[in-house]
Amino acid sequence: MTPPLANKSPFITLEGGEGSGKSTQIKLLSQWLGDLGIDHVCTREPGGAPGAEQIRSLVLTGDVDRWTPMTEVLLYTAARSDHVERVITPALDSGRMVICDRFYDSSIAYQGAGRGVGVEKVRDLQKLVLGDLRPDLTLILDLPVQVGLGRAVSRETDKAAAEDRFERMDVSLHETFRRVFLEIAEQAPDRCVVIDADREVDDLQHILRGIIAQRFGLLEQA
Amino acid sequence: MTPPLANKSPFITLEGGEGSGKSTQIKLLSQWLGDLGIDHVCTREPGGAPGAEQIRSLVLTGDVDRWTPMTEVLLYTAARSDHVERVITPALDSGRMVICDRFYDSSIAYQGAGRGVGVEKVRDLQKLVLGDLRPDLTLILDLPVQVGLGRAVSRETDKAAAEDRFERMDVSLHETFRRVFLEIAEQAPDRCVVIDADREVDDLQHILRGIIAQRFGLLEQA
Repeated sequence: MTPPLANKSPFITLEGGEGSGKSTQIKLLSQWLGDLGIDHVCTREPGGAPGAEQIRSLVLTGDVDRWTPMTEVLLYTAARSDHVERVITPALDSGRMVICDRFYDSSIAYQGAGRGVGVEKVRDLQKLVLGDLRPDLTLILDLPVQVGLGRAVSRETDKAAAEDRFERMDVSLHETFRRVFLEIAEQAPDRCVVIDADREVDDLQHILRGIIAQRFGLLEQA
Repeated sequence: MTPPLANKSPFITLEGGEGSGKSTQIKLLSQWLGDLGIDHVCTREPGGAPGAEQIRSLVLTGDVDRWTPMTEVLLYTAARSDHVERVITPALDSGRMVICDRFYDSSIAYQGAGRGVGVEKVRDLQKLVLGDLRPDLTLILDLPVQVGLGRAVSRETDKAAAEDRFERMDVSLHETFRRVFLEIAEQAPDRCVVIDADREVDDLQHILRGIIAQRFGLLEQA
């Protein structure tokens, strides 16, 4: 039997590549949780707290080569530490569910594999900083890379900007991110659920609600 | 026999509490090395490189409680990573001696012990980030806390500011820093030398020059 929500607030993260629909799905999940009367916080990384947002700005501004990969992962992890200590842990401690758009799995995929710091090194760093804190459920929105990048590009209203953006995307790098997310899911099957995100928004939302409701016994309570 | 300088550029760090005279001593060491014709770089932490200085500003501005201890140590370590990759390693690789005012032992003392992150946790973090890089020699300028704080305060030209500064100093915390530096030296006797810094500037400089010359065979070469 799934434990009732009151015993331990669930900490849920969404992961996935560009265009996988995480932010849209989180908005819809928030509406649903609100309708069920479930107190919750939706947040995102990098950022999610005032200090963390300032660190995020420092990482994201300036030249592409401004930060070495190791410095970058340390800055993102510093932002995560701030976000966890100022927002996530206090919310969980006060009995609220937390839904976070990206968390440490993104550091493992993007800096660990993508920028070459090393998957194990980034994992060890997260463990060192966060201790026992880990998501209760990680929903990995999986999508063929070309589909996701196509969606991300189609968001651009400016056609030239869209083409430029597509040019800058390294498809093989995005294939790496996808593979790492799938490997993470394989290694942590109790925590991660991979969902085929190549479907309509409402269908995907229906699936996510079903997984969350079942995992945390929400419908029994509501 | 000490190895000749050409084989491996020495990486030297100076550590010690407030008022222990590190920056004055480094200036005098630099003059001496210049006179000997030894190519060297003097740098300092936190900071020491453009990115690292920006991270330093982020850490040091704003409210005292702006950053949790863990976030603070991650930011300082991110600054160190930048400093190492942009300044220290390139200098050593090009055959220059590096003298650095504070390095990871300060993180162990100030964030590990002082802010309660834990000495072992901060040490593990440094190891994870820096790998095998460690100073060849760490000179710990040791001084009774009251003497060091008295010197630091006497630098203030404004008497009210000096008194205010003294008021804000938590003597027992500085005793902790001193104890941790001495413990680090005990645990790494091949790397660390503790020097009684409660003496005249010139006497102290004479001692430091002697240790460096002997350790790295400088006078044999010069």
